[in-house]
Amino acid sequence: MTVPSTPESKCDVLIIGAGPAGLMMAAWMARCGIHARIVDKRSTKIFSGQADGLQMRSLEIFDSFGFADRAWKEANHMIEICMWNPGADGTIRRSDRIPDVPVGLSRFTQIVLHQGRIERFFLDHIKKYSDPPISVERAVLPESLSIDETLCDNHSADSYPIKVTLRHLTEEEATPAQQSNGNGNDVRDGMFRSNLAEDDTDDLIRKSQVKEGAAEVVRAKYMVGCDGAHSWTRRQLGFQLEGEPTDFIWGVLDVIPITDFPDIRMRCAVHSASSGSLMVIPRENKLVRLYIQLNEIKPDASGRADRSQITPTTIITAAQKILSPYKITYEYCDWWTAYQIGQRVGTNFDSRSRVFLAGDAVHTHSPKAGQGMNVSMQDAFNLGWKLGLVVKGIAKPEILKTYQSERRRVAQDLINFDHKFSRLFSGRPAKDVMDESGVSMADFKDAFIKGNLFASGLSVDYGASMLVAKEGNAAQQGDGTDVSASRVRGKQELAKKVLMGMRFPSFKVLNQSDARPWHFQERLKSDGRFRLIVFAGNVLSPAQNERLNAFCGALASSTFLKPHLYTNIDVLTLHSAKRTDTELLRDFPEVLHPFDEHSGWDYNSVFVDDESYHEGYGDAYGNYGVDRETGCVLVTRPDQYVGFVGELGGEGFKEVERYFGGVLVGKGG
Amino acid sequence: MTVPSTPESKCDVLIIGAGPAGLMMAAWMARCGIHARIVDKRSTKIFSGQADGLQMRSLEIFDSFGFADRAWKEANHMIEICMWNPGADGTIRRSDRIPDVPVGLSRFTQIVLHQGRIERFFLDHIKKYSDPPISVERAVLPESLSIDETLCDNHSADSYPIKVTLRHLTEEEATPAQQSNGNGNDVRDGMFRSNLAEDDTDDLIRKSQVKEGAAEVVRAKYMVGCDGAHSWTRRQLGFQLEGEPTDFIWGVLDVIPITDFPDIRMRCAVHSASSGSLMVIPRENKLVRLYIQLNEIKPDASGRADRSQITPTTIITAAQKILSPYKITYEYCDWWTAYQIGQRVGTNFDSRSRVFLAGDAVHTHSPKAGQGMNVSMQDAFNLGWKLGLVVKGIAKPEILKTYQSERRRVAQDLINFDHKFSRLFSGRPAKDVMDESGVSMADFKDAFIKGNLFASGLSVDYGASMLVAKEGNAAQQGDGTDVSASRVRGKQELAKKVLMGMRFPSFKVLNQSDARPWHFQERLKSDGRFRLIVFAGNVLSPAQNERLNAFCGALASSTFLKPHLYTNIDVLTLHSAKRTDTELLRDFPEVLHPFDEHSGWDYNSVFVDDESYHEGYGDAYGNYGVDRETGCVLVTRPDQYVGFVGELGGEGFKEVERYFGGVLVGKGG
Repeated sequence: MTVPSTPESKCDVLIIGAGPAGLMMAAWMARCGIHARIVDKRSTKIFSGQADGLQMRSLEIFDSFGFADRAWKEANHMIEICMWNPGADGTIRRSDRIPDVPVGLSRFTQIVLHQGRIERFFLDHIKKYSDPPISVERAVLPESLSIDETLCDNHSADSYPIKVTLRHLTEEEATPAQQSNGNGNDVRDGMFRSNLAEDDTDDLIRKSQVKEGAAEVVRAKYMVGCDGAHSWTRRQLGFQLEGEPTDFIWGVLDVIPITDFPDIRMRCAVHSASSGSLMVIPRENKLVRLYIQLNEIKPDASGRADRSQITPTTIITAAQKILSPYKITYEYCDWWTAYQIGQRVGTNFDSRSRVFLAGDAVHTHSPKAGQGMNVSMQDAFNLGWKLGLVVKGIAKPEILKTYQSERRRVAQDLINFDHKFSRLFSGRPAKDVMDESGVSMADFKDAFIKGNLFASGLSVDYGASMLVAKEGNAAQQGDGTDVSASRVRGKQELAKKVLMGMRFPSFKVLNQSDARPWHFQERLKSDGRFRLIVFAGNVLSPAQNERLNAFCGALASSTFLKPHLYTNIDVLTLHSAKRTDTELLRDFPEVLHPFDEHSGWDYNSVFVDDESYHEGYGDAYGNYGVDRETGCVLVTRPDQYVGFVGELGGEGFKEVERYFGGVLVGKGG
Repeated sequence: MTVPSTPESKCDVLIIGAGPAGLMMAAWMARCGIHARIVDKRSTKIFSGQADGLQMRSLEIFDSFGFADRAWKEANHMIEICMWNPGADGTIRRSDRIPDVPVGLSRFTQIVLHQGRIERFFLDHIKKYSDPPISVERAVLPESLSIDETLCDNHSADSYPIKVTLRHLTEEEATPAQQSNGNGNDVRDGMFRSNLAEDDTDDLIRKSQVKEGAAEVVRAKYMVGCDGAHSWTRRQLGFQLEGEPTDFIWGVLDVIPITDFPDIRMRCAVHSASSGSLMVIPRENKLVRLYIQLNEIKPDASGRADRSQITPTTIITAAQKILSPYKITYEYCDWWTAYQIGQRVGTNFDSRSRVFLAGDAVHTHSPKAGQGMNVSMQDAFNLGWKLGLVVKGIAKPEILKTYQSERRRVAQDLINFDHKFSRLFSGRPAKDVMDESGVSMADFKDAFIKGNLFASGLSVDYGASMLVAKEGNAAQQGDGTDVSASRVRGKQELAKKVLMGMRFPSFKVLNQSDARPWHFQERLKSDGRFRLIVFAGNVLSPAQNERLNAFCGALASSTFLKPHLYTNIDVLTLHSAKRTDTELLRDFPEVLHPFDEHSGWDYNSVFVDDESYHEGYGDAYGNYGVDRETGCVLVTRPDQYVGFVGELGGEGFKEVERYFGGVLVGKGG
């Protein structure tokens, strides 16, 4: 197929697709210093609309990269959910108010922002950090994939098992056709991406093949398909999305509403008596996103609805019926689309630890829970550092198996939840307790509250593996993949509220050297490093001082760990004595605040659980469930998930060393 | 002097000097849409070092422009002050710890950041908002100034009393010479700006005059001299700086210290027994600024010290003596300078309400209190909106007199404080209570704490004028300037803790429409608008509802105010009923949340004093000292200072109208 003149090049990681999952992957590649490429078949001009709710966990992740503040500042903040149901007279009325997210779980709440802005934050970040430079190559799509099976198990630096031919499109070829909306203006729509539309990838490839010089060959060590629900990468691998569609069709409108509906700036779930359901998602700049059930559009014999029936006018008309007696109209429409609800999950998330799938390529579901973009980004957030550390020869290739084990399980849980929830949302409200074909509004509310915790992203609990030193059956806690090699068992009881497998929670602590308050999680940046968090306890007690010194002495002299210290393993300390009774240079071993001959002592690694002048008291030891006298030691992975909990002292250090022995490559003599 | 070909142009406001005061002025011109120019005699390459502490009030001001978050994120945060004095054995030891700023006054604390970054934030802001575009013209300096006295009292749109000839320098001419530091490296110094150096402005003018085509003539309506302690503008006007220098010489070093001094990341005031005093200001990126008393350098017969004696080596040697027995050295020095302490204040801040002086041009003092840049920016923050509104014909020219009245008084207070404080800091510590020539460390601590409140910028209290409707003698409360025309008297007792003349304090409130918590001050943006803040009280009480309706009815139909509503006077409401018991469209008159036919209702103007889900309870009515039942009405100026407090109801409205009648130009038929 390839003519002799086709250019050929190599890269470490090839990313297909530059949506949120692909960009998150590229961000990790940038932070880890990996030679990566990222290509997308679309041109640049499709930035309107699309998914836009940001979970608390996604904001924590953005903060770890350093741009949560940009999202927080620009976004609309959703605070409260109002539920509207038919009253006894059949007219909708507000039945409940609940907080939009559970209180106290995170320092962030849920916000809503245009996906184009989120992609902008990623692009700026990638530009700032990538060396070698990584920039999204648009209007480029893969045409063929071959994998040299004989090289797959060889993860050495010169092994490139993957060969991909890429095609370069023109701007025009890469711009999807827009549906006419019937009233002559040029509102952008997302129907080309909807699951009501056919995929156009094969068509694009055909178009580009007739041109000379539009092809190139890339050889890669690893490849990640972030190429959406129609994933070309998934099809090459022969993997399936399993699940089935429903009959429920929903429309989406992004408009500036003109309305007397009182809760238009709240997130609302509205069930009308017989006209269907609607969700209100208030956005930035007076925009509101409306998800509107289209009761009058039904799938045909093929199982798919005729998309030509759907226009902004049919959608707003449906909304007007649902919200009656309130009035709603608009002058400005920013974007619209429609979709058919269905839940599907991929049979495989990886092939031989060489080609990986992330995001919509391996899970699709209804968009209303604000899950799609978030779970997709979090797939890539889970995979990126693992790939980065393996490419650099720092971590063992075996850790790559935990990607499918951890993320396919999350996708399965998500799909199961969404299956139940979307039926409750699309169903007709029960008239009374005898109305068995209707949906009980009490059940719906319960599901909504449960769904909110799920949708926070904070309930994710990764199973046991070489990366998570917890008890139990590793296969059962994941998706069945075998990740039990090199496992160690930590001592969860030493940090009762910092659960191995879950993300490290955040409380306020003070820097010992300058008394500045920090949310402890702010110190866990996404720079590819594990963190050894030393809960040093009461360092002024002689017995505890002895245990701390024993631990630190072993750490400073470990043949295995020393080459990884600070470069691959950051060391953070949190003690529980009074700040003003302790001194950095007197009370803490040097390994906890290393000296540099050019810039002096490290003043940014030792923290204290004490009261601040201006920002209250975090009570971190209490909130982490750690004994204030004896402390403990804890390891977080580069993605802030807790890998290990154990004890201080010389014996405790050996367990830490065993944990890292299962994960990192030995560098010592 | 001007040859026939000299180009000539007009602008509304000409700003001389692009330091913090000049840039603040330009920021206001950008936000008000004024045709302004800003010129600076220096080239672009002098961004190291210089003043860098940001007061709480400065951060509130940055937030009103929208870039406090950038400063907050990059800066070092100072939390605690440690005081070190000689113990009984004459060796220094830590005697006290106090919070760096008073607790509870502001949502910000004091931070430290390179002045170059702060100037960058201003430049980005000016670029984003200015229309017509404003950009700093560097290497340009004024050569002559003439004022047409016959036009000065004519503030109409075509009156340009000011004529200035500008000279354009080359990059080389505009770059100040750097002092050799004696050890061959190229550390940048600030000696060319120090009061130990001669001014070079006349020299620069002479150099540029020999060139052809380097001159231009600008005719301006108003001019602001932000051109530093040697102010050329001030000299043209014939105004003086009054005051005198001391014998105290201090050096400044910006270094990454290598030291065993325990509090190197705290702000420290160190008095040694007999080697002089030192202040530690921790900065970003491991830098520390040291202010070091140079006991061994004395002024000569001219009253000025010989600056050739001062090098980084002499300065660090002095620091080593003061900090002994602790060691301090450095490998990296970022910048250094030296200065002779003196306090001086300008005799006049304005000439005929046409030419104004701001910043170091009218007040100089010791830099250690972190006051210089802050007070300079706040001068311009006071003047900028007044000039902007007068140029646009919105406000009466008489308000320009309040600039000198308000800011010269602040400068006088500052200089008086600094006079006392710097003598306490530079004096030898008393050995005991009998040592009368020594400084009592208890007195020093008291002065330090008092100085901290002063240095927060939050104790500024502007006197009575047409802009501040408080009781008392306007001349006595200011600097003596007559600003008593058109005064009204408000009713301070209706808002006991929101004092007329002081900045509007901030507490958490919720948006009625979406329940989002805001610091109320965040809604008071620097966009050139006054704010009418309606404390609506308990809107569910029929009696209160009647008073609110009477006020709003009068407001909506006022011939004088209606043309100014929303464009020049923003309307914000804060009520005290339960959020969930009230509805925006049902309980609040339309004038408080106006309808727009293209974008519907305004959902961002009505707030409630109620509990939030995630961010506690602001108790705004309690903290503002306003009655929860009956409320009040309040006016803030465009700079967030409180101008008026009065009552609701139809009679109350008349007082509001009278206040604005003294300030704004009538637009009605």
